[in-house]
Amino acid sequence: MTLETISTNRSFGGVQGVYAHDSQATGTRMVFSVYVPPHAEGQKLPVLLYLSGLTCTHANVTEKGEFRRACAEAGVIFVAPDTSPRGDEVADDEAYDFGKGAGFYVDATQEPWAAHFRMRTYIEQELPDLLAEHFPVDRTRQGITGHSMGGHGALTIALRNPDRFRSVSAFAPIVSPLNCPWGEKALGGYLGQDRVAWRAYDACALIEDGARLPELLVDQGLGDNFLEGQLKTHLLEEACKASGIPATIRMQEGYDHSYYFISSFMADHVAWHAERLKR
Amino acid sequence: MTLETISTNRSFGGVQGVYAHDSQATGTRMVFSVYVPPHAEGQKLPVLLYLSGLTCTHANVTEKGEFRRACAEAGVIFVAPDTSPRGDEVADDEAYDFGKGAGFYVDATQEPWAAHFRMRTYIEQELPDLLAEHFPVDRTRQGITGHSMGGHGALTIALRNPDRFRSVSAFAPIVSPLNCPWGEKALGGYLGQDRVAWRAYDACALIEDGARLPELLVDQGLGDNFLEGQLKTHLLEEACKASGIPATIRMQEGYDHSYYFISSFMADHVAWHAERLKR
Repeated sequence: MTLETISTNRSFGGVQGVYAHDSQATGTRMVFSVYVPPHAEGQKLPVLLYLSGLTCTHANVTEKGEFRRACAEAGVIFVAPDTSPRGDEVADDEAYDFGKGAGFYVDATQEPWAAHFRMRTYIEQELPDLLAEHFPVDRTRQGITGHSMGGHGALTIALRNPDRFRSVSAFAPIVSPLNCPWGEKALGGYLGQDRVAWRAYDACALIEDGARLPELLVDQGLGDNFLEGQLKTHLLEEACKASGIPATIRMQEGYDHSYYFISSFMADHVAWHAERLKR
Repeated sequence: MTLETISTNRSFGGVQGVYAHDSQATGTRMVFSVYVPPHAEGQKLPVLLYLSGLTCTHANVTEKGEFRRACAEAGVIFVAPDTSPRGDEVADDEAYDFGKGAGFYVDATQEPWAAHFRMRTYIEQELPDLLAEHFPVDRTRQGITGHSMGGHGALTIALRNPDRFRSVSAFAPIVSPLNCPWGEKALGGYLGQDRVAWRAYDACALIEDGARLPELLVDQGLGDNFLEGQLKTHLLEEACKASGIPATIRMQEGYDHSYYFISSFMADHVAWHAERLKR
C-alpha cells in the first residue's frame, strides 16, 4: 500500500509525521498522523491508537494532545486517524454530529452512507496493516484510546477484538450510543432503526452480551457539559462492575470536554498503556 | 483597568484563561492568555511572559506550546499576549511579515502605523500593570521568553529593562533586525529609514551599545529554514562572547521553526526560568 508523506517534523527527539493514502475500506483518501519516538534502528515499538471525537481530524490531538513527551519517554508510537471519510464524493449532513467528522467508527449499512462510511473496517483492518508495512510497529503490542466519540470507538473496537489490544483507555467516552441522543442519531442514520444491530457498537451492550476487557482506565471531567445528557459514565461503571471488568474510572473535578482536559491526563494514559504493552 | 474573560478551562490542576481589554497603549481591544497553576490562596507567583512570532496570536502557544505541565510543576504563571493591534481601524499590509500579526514589539513612529502599533509600550508598561491588578503575580519575579519575532521582542525588552526581568530566554530568535530582511522591512516601515533609531530594537546592537543580560538560554533548530537568512544566531553568540554575557545557545539537530520544535524544549525553558525566579 502506497503512503504519501504530507509533513514530518522533529519533535521530542522523534518524528511527528502526517501521511495520506487511498483507502480501500472507505474508497477515499485518508489522512492520519504518526509520532515515532527516538529508538534504536531495527527496533519494533509498541503502538497506541488514538481515536478522536466529533468534528475532529487527525490534527486536533496532533497539535493539542501533548502526547509526544510521554511517548518519547516510554518508547511508544502514537497514531491518530481521521474521524470519517472526506471528499466531495462523500455524503454529508449539515449537523456537526452526523456525516463528515462524525463516522462513529461503524460500517454503515444505510444509504447514502454505506459507500464510504466504513470506519470500522478502516480502523480494525486496513490501518493496522498499513502501519505495520510503513512504521516500526510491534503488532503484538497494541493499545487503543480515544476521546468522546473516539472513546466509544476505542471501547467498542477493543471489546470486539479481545486478542488485538493489550490495553484500553478512554477520555470522556460516549459509553452507550443506545442511550444518548448523539448515538441514537448516528447509529439510526448509519445502521437503520433495528436497534439490535446497534449493540455491536455500544460498549455497555457489548459487555452485557459477554464481551470483556482485561482492564480499563477512563478519565471523565465533572465540569463536562456532555456528561449528563450524552456520555453517562455511570452506565459503563455499572456494566464493568456487573461483569467483573477491573475499571479505574476517575471523575475529575472541574475539567471540561476540551483538549485542556485531555492533555492534562494524556501522560497518565500513555504511561498506563506503556506499562501494559511492555509486560 | 477592566478585564473581560473570554474563556477559562481547567488544565493540569490550574486555569488556562483567555482575556480581553481595551488597551490605552494601542487604542484597540487586545486579547491575551494567562495560565495560573495550582497554588495556595493568597500566594503570589513568579510570571513568565512569552512573546509569539510572525502571524501568531495568543492562541498558537496556548494551544501548541505544551507549557502547562511544566508551569504547574514549577508554580509559574505563563502569559501570552498578541503580536500586534487588531481591528478594522488598524492599518495593515498584505504581507505576513508586516502590519497585523507582525508588530515586532516596537512603538512605531511612521504613518499610518504610529497610531496603534505601540507594542513596546503595551508589553513593557500596560500589560504588567494589568496582570498585577488581576492575577496573583509577584512583580519582583518576572521572566521573559519568546519565539522568532517574539524572541527578538524578549531579548530587546529585557536588554532595555535590566531591572525588570530576572531571567531571559528565547526560541529561534531574530537576533539582529538590522541585519536581516524581516527586520529591515519592519523597522524601516515602523521607524523610518534612520537606522540609528533601530538600535533600540536590535539585541546585538543593544549589547554593542552597552546593555547587558544576567544570563541567557537560547534554543535554535539546525533544520530551521530561517536560520541562515533571517535569524543568524551566530551574531548573538558573538555579541554575548564579546560582552561577557553568559549565554547557553543550543543548536538542536534536525529541529525546524515550528511549535513541534518549541514544545520539545518548552519544559526546559520553564524550569530554567523557574530556577532563577525562585532564587
